[in-house]
Amino acid sequence: MSMVVVGSVALDTVKTPFGEAADALGGSCSYSTVAARRFAEPVSMVAVVGEDFPADHVAFFDERGVDTSGLVRTPGRTFRWGGEYGFDLNTRETLFTELNVFAEFKPELSSGAQDCDYLFLANIDPTLQRAVLDQTRKPRMVVMDTMNFWIDGARDSLLETIARVDVLLLNDEETRMLTGEANLIRAARKVLELGPRVVIVKKGEHGALVFSREFTFSAPAYPVELIYDPTGAGDSFAGGFLGYLAQSEDCWDPGAIRRAVIYGTVMASFTVEAFSLDGLAQATRPQVEERFARIREMANF
Amino acid sequence: MSMVVVGSVALDTVKTPFGEAADALGGSCSYSTVAARRFAEPVSMVAVVGEDFPADHVAFFDERGVDTSGLVRTPGRTFRWGGEYGFDLNTRETLFTELNVFAEFKPELSSGAQDCDYLFLANIDPTLQRAVLDQTRKPRMVVMDTMNFWIDGARDSLLETIARVDVLLLNDEETRMLTGEANLIRAARKVLELGPRVVIVKKGEHGALVFSREFTFSAPAYPVELIYDPTGAGDSFAGGFLGYLAQSEDCWDPGAIRRAVIYGTVMASFTVEAFSLDGLAQATRPQVEERFARIREMANF
Repeated sequence: MSMVVVGSVALDTVKTPFGEAADALGGSCSYSTVAARRFAEPVSMVAVVGEDFPADHVAFFDERGVDTSGLVRTPGRTFRWGGEYGFDLNTRETLFTELNVFAEFKPELSSGAQDCDYLFLANIDPTLQRAVLDQTRKPRMVVMDTMNFWIDGARDSLLETIARVDVLLLNDEETRMLTGEANLIRAARKVLELGPRVVIVKKGEHGALVFSREFTFSAPAYPVELIYDPTGAGDSFAGGFLGYLAQSEDCWDPGAIRRAVIYGTVMASFTVEAFSLDGLAQATRPQVEERFARIREMANF
Repeated sequence: MSMVVVGSVALDTVKTPFGEAADALGGSCSYSTVAARRFAEPVSMVAVVGEDFPADHVAFFDERGVDTSGLVRTPGRTFRWGGEYGFDLNTRETLFTELNVFAEFKPELSSGAQDCDYLFLANIDPTLQRAVLDQTRKPRMVVMDTMNFWIDGARDSLLETIARVDVLLLNDEETRMLTGEANLIRAARKVLELGPRVVIVKKGEHGALVFSREFTFSAPAYPVELIYDPTGAGDSFAGGFLGYLAQSEDCWDPGAIRRAVIYGTVMASFTVEAFSLDGLAQATRPQVEERFARIREMANF
């Protein structure tokens, strides 16, 4: 089954207590497609880069089997983001955001992408997310991500998009912000009333909570002992989640959704163990299964 | 198998966004013995109250089958604590602490209590905790609780006590504080090196993590939708945990320890749904089992 991701490809400059990386490959579309490709095929990116985007990075995607035909190169510089993490890696300060060519991003799906079975709308302007939805024919499952910036600044547009997707990803802070409800369980139930069939609340080191009308699932985090760089964890989670479902027999089976959340958790755990996409790229399929089994053992009682 | 709890019996004045209670029954020994008694028998309290302590409260313990022969009444006023919780119930401000008769608390175990099989050392001065340990003969399992106050102010004494107990309860903040380690997994492993066989890191709405040399267990929280008053949650957890183990065949079996953590979680969930011990007192055994099953269903994948 085919999967498409619409999002950003960026050059990230990241400082953490363990070191720093300048102009390293990043962006939601990069993390999520590489994570998804461990499970599904074909996986296609829809994104934009500038003239300065290194050919090596395109080769990196190609070598990992990600379809880059929808990665458009336009005049100008690539989207750049800079951030610094505090000592416990739970706080992040954005040092700079240079949108560059991303400012004019108007995602256009190829004929093949319009027919995709699985769609991940990574964190971009909710109006653009709807413009993408308008181009699709009949995807089996649409997953969307967002951020506090849109909850604060484009609430009505965001709610309109949320009403049209199947699965919404939020972190705990965003869940409370979107609903004005301090209790996370009640907040998540309120989000369900906005339209999505499934709401996934990502809690970082505390795992994730999954809510649907049919079931509630509490997923543990993988016990990562050395977090080098949390950047891309959420997108790796999304890619692993939807990539696993894209190759499963029935993407709406609650058991499959639960397992997909664990595979998403596993992919995120590899990402945070290194800078950029290094951790994700190095993880082998047996290592993925090993971590899945480890989480199962940890959650068993 | 017999279980003894050494801790406080207090009159609490609590304000939450949902209301307030003045001079309500509280204290670590109260919550933990009532929770434990749902599983184990006999469960005995070792604590002190003043002349003003209502006879009704003693009757409350007696009616619930808690052995109050070790509840000493001395001249003076009962320990009083006042606190206020913020709107999301995650922040707590202590409004006042009147130690009163608790300031002179020198726990003395009866001959029967000295022979106890299971001992919970609730949060008191670590020097007093050791004085209690010195009076016991050969308990099968000793569980201790503590707080930031002792980590900050009585570190050496605390470390000496920690080295002598089997199971240490901490919250996530205390785990980081005790070890100076931001990563919770590494922090918990460092705590294990201080001596206990099992370290339980309580994370409130995020559940609990259990670490031993043999296994790691990630326990979900029970999805409480209306938290009225978090006071006593940790002690109810401890009581449910040790009470369950006190009646199990092998308290050191990893499966029993995992289940005990879930029963502790269930007892805490009843406590936070009402003021004082009201939630705990009203919970029926079928309701306890229902919540246990609900958590199992939530964690399953």
